Amino acid sequence: MNEVIQSLFSRKSVRSFEDRPIPAEDKLLILHAAAQAPTAGNQQLYTILDITDQELKDRLAVTCDNQPFIAKAPLVLIFCADFQKWYDAFLETGASPRKPAPGDLLLAVDDALIAAQNAVTAAWSLGIGSCYIGDIMEQCRVHRELLALPDYVFPAAMAVFGYPTAQQMERPKPERCPLSSIVHENTYHSLHGEELYNTFKGRFGQKSYEDWCRAFCQRKYNSDFSREMSSSVEEYLKSWL
Amino acid sequence: MNEVIQSLFSRKSVRSFEDRPIPAEDKLLILHAAAQAPTAGNQQLYTILDITDQELKDRLAVTCDNQPFIAKAPLVLIFCADFQKWYDAFLETGASPRKPAPGDLLLAVDDALIAAQNAVTAAWSLGIGSCYIGDIMEQCRVHRELLALPDYVFPAAMAVFGYPTAQQMERPKPERCPLSSIVHENTYHSLHGEELYNTFKGRFGQKSYEDWCRAFCQRKYNSDFSREMSSSVEEYLKSWL
Repeated sequence: MNEVIQSLFSRKSVRSFEDRPIPAEDKLLILHAAAQAPTAGNQQLYTILDITDQELKDRLAVTCDNQPFIAKAPLVLIFCADFQKWYDAFLETGASPRKPAPGDLLLAVDDALIAAQNAVTAAWSLGIGSCYIGDIMEQCRVHRELLALPDYVFPAAMAVFGYPTAQQMERPKPERCPLSSIVHENTYHSLHGEELYNTFKGRFGQKSYEDWCRAFCQRKYNSDFSREMSSSVEEYLKSWL
Repeated sequence: MNEVIQSLFSRKSVRSFEDRPIPAEDKLLILHAAAQAPTAGNQQLYTILDITDQELKDRLAVTCDNQPFIAKAPLVLIFCADFQKWYDAFLETGASPRKPAPGDLLLAVDDALIAAQNAVTAAWSLGIGSCYIGDIMEQCRVHRELLALPDYVFPAAMAVFGYPTAQQMERPKPERCPLSSIVHENTYHSLHGEELYNTFKGRFGQKSYEDWCRAFCQRKYNSDFSREMSSSVEEYLKSWL
């Protein structure tokens, strides 16, 4: 296994950071690695917000489902799907662009996440841990105002970065589903019964599959933050529909 | 610059492949690298379709905006945002899940692209080139049938892999926008006039900014495939809205 693949395998989320800053040159490498990522038609359909203001970090720690470690991260990046800059360039140069639509949003979300994962991978190779915060998709009205997002900019993901504490480094990486559940040959194969059981096996702890799954559904999927995420994304979508 | 970051910087899209297969052990490393990627709540909200059937590759080369090199790629992976498996597990274990909604789709698209970029990065480290094909989001009705996609599975991205031809290795990587246009501090900064000009500078060739931008808008943004992508994504969205 080469160094790159070793690094991809060993990377795990870090939610507690040492109290020391990320050197400017490493931050720059992380940002350049993001910008060097593949991008549809070389359009770079994203903008990265670099949150340096402590008050803004404090607010995001609250608005992103109350996760205080966000405020303590030395580097907080928001990867926005951005069609606005292209739309504005088209308008300003007298092109006659059609209205941005859902396909543009999804293509830009692809671009944003591809760039984000390059940042995360680059950081890990420098000994810098990270954690994705999907909750940045929540609270459309609040975040649009807080981050000054125009209509065709969607905060697709946030990632927070910092040096892992010793305790975080010792935490085992959670096990993934068997590859056979995740990779299907040629066509999608709907999983049922024992196949679903085997997909999630190893996560139940002391619980039965049924009890674990019902509890997970309640705690995660039927939760307030999850419902909020969907209301918020629906609100963002209105601009593109 | 360490080996990982060097690899992220040097990676460029490859659209022409040598006529030789990818060894099974390397393919397995690529797939495992994808599955080891960060994922929201360790849910792995994606399924990877491994297209091994030549007839299916041939069809995809047509349905994905007529790009014959897709059919010649020794490895074709479709990264699907997948909420279906969780929804089915919730139903089968007697949980009472709410209906999947746009937030679930977007979170799953995030997950799918994070995994995809790990696959692309792992492949490049093994000397294997790749190209993302966003066009897999087009042709909702055709692809749903061809790939047997249920309602809560969305093909977020395709990536094709293979050994680059010598000509492809010589092709220069297209220049990215200046980092100052891509990274904004704290809040989104709308770009206008000279700032937009500087964002795209270096891409105009012999053309003026205005002529280049108008032509780009016509060729890409107002194109049939781009309109088709948005109609198709709108069709997929109906399940989640």
